[in-house]
Amino acid sequence: MSRTVKSARSQHSTQRRKVRGDLASAALELFATKGYEATTVDEIAAAAGVARRTFFRHFRSKEEAIFPDHDDTLERVEAVLRGAPAQENPIDTVCRGIKEVMRMYAASPTLSVARYRLTREVPALREREIASVSRYERLFTRYLLARYDDRSHLGDEPLLAEVAASAVVTAHNHVLRRWLRSEGQGDVESALDHAFTIVRRAFGDLPSAGQRPPAARAATDGEVLVTVARTDAPLPEVMRAIERALDQRG
Amino acid sequence: MSRTVKSARSQHSTQRRKVRGDLASAALELFATKGYEATTVDEIAAAAGVARRTFFRHFRSKEEAIFPDHDDTLERVEAVLRGAPAQENPIDTVCRGIKEVMRMYAASPTLSVARYRLTREVPALREREIASVSRYERLFTRYLLARYDDRSHLGDEPLLAEVAASAVVTAHNHVLRRWLRSEGQGDVESALDHAFTIVRRAFGDLPSAGQRPPAARAATDGEVLVTVARTDAPLPEVMRAIERALDQRG
Repeated sequence: MSRTVKSARSQHSTQRRKVRGDLASAALELFATKGYEATTVDEIAAAAGVARRTFFRHFRSKEEAIFPDHDDTLERVEAVLRGAPAQENPIDTVCRGIKEVMRMYAASPTLSVARYRLTREVPALREREIASVSRYERLFTRYLLARYDDRSHLGDEPLLAEVAASAVVTAHNHVLRRWLRSEGQGDVESALDHAFTIVRRAFGDLPSAGQRPPAARAATDGEVLVTVARTDAPLPEVMRAIERALDQRG
Repeated sequence: MSRTVKSARSQHSTQRRKVRGDLASAALELFATKGYEATTVDEIAAAAGVARRTFFRHFRSKEEAIFPDHDDTLERVEAVLRGAPAQENPIDTVCRGIKEVMRMYAASPTLSVARYRLTREVPALREREIASVSRYERLFTRYLLARYDDRSHLGDEPLLAEVAASAVVTAHNHVLRRWLRSEGQGDVESALDHAFTIVRRAFGDLPSAGQRPPAARAATDGEVLVTVARTDAPLPEVMRAIERALDQRG
């Protein structure tokens, strides 16, 4: 690609983001002051200084206008998945992917908090947001399914992939909602990492692509010891895994 | 309550269900033949032989009209949770609860399949359905949270309750979607029970209210042996649990 084409593209993309951002601010402002129902697309377009048809080039409906960044974020998430190292556990990749979504919210705390207040009051906006989030969930399900190779779950892979994707997205939404309710205070990325640790523990049995799990694995966390073994694993091997895990703890 | 009042109530409820059912059939028929966008509330009301204001007594919008049973189903689910035996694992209670939702779909396969086709084509209807399902999810999260007493997760209970509720709902939706895509063929309740087994395994560490988990538990499924033990459990006790699980398998 020549430098000129690249620069023209990048200019176009900057311009596109600016228009979308202006429309989103205008919509948020109008929804908050005038009310969601009473606000028209024409008013949003006018407040952002663009024509009605420009609005519809960027958003399908007025409820979409306050979520201008999901399309770009989805692309960034896809890039994370595409660029994942082959040896990375797919669940970890998905966790890194959804961090892009969290960063989108964290980049503008004031805007995110104001929008959150609105979505709680206006069902149409809440439903719009739920629908946006479900796009990430479908992307993660497809990704996990393509990398699923635990033969002990033959036939249940689509179910497990979807449940695992949903667990990651739910954990993300939970942390995000807490952060928004606390007016965007605190380190939301650390909170997200902690939540992932909790979820990863529950879904620890989804091995990386291409890995054959060992005959027996054991790990401790606080007061709990968890062991996963093949039923044909020799008992001494199971015992060694357990003892190793208990030793590492102490 | 006197028999007369009861009977009047029951008559009212039967009448209510009939009107809602008629409106739903009319809406589904019109959406399918005339198209969702082109269909008006007036046309739906007219086709069902009721006035426009009767429509709005039952539904807030035309996209709600094809899901007439979620309100009643939510009540039945709440009744399942309320009536759960104290010793039942809360996750099992939630699984029994969401079975009521599956039964609602399974009670009218043709209608459910036709509606599913429509929801795939019309984003507004799909979003409406996602929103309906999120009501069950919130109910389950509250229920699980109130019964959560695993002290090893201090502070993470709201996260775990939400992730567990979401896992159950996701498993349900997965099985439901498969059944709808297969034109409502096969025993969907058995498929749901199987899916719950898979999810229960992942979330096996959510103990029942008031129960102190045993020092060590082990279970096998096919080729996999899973053991959960307290780190202070005597090793012989862990071994006994493993051997018991392997014996039961044979």
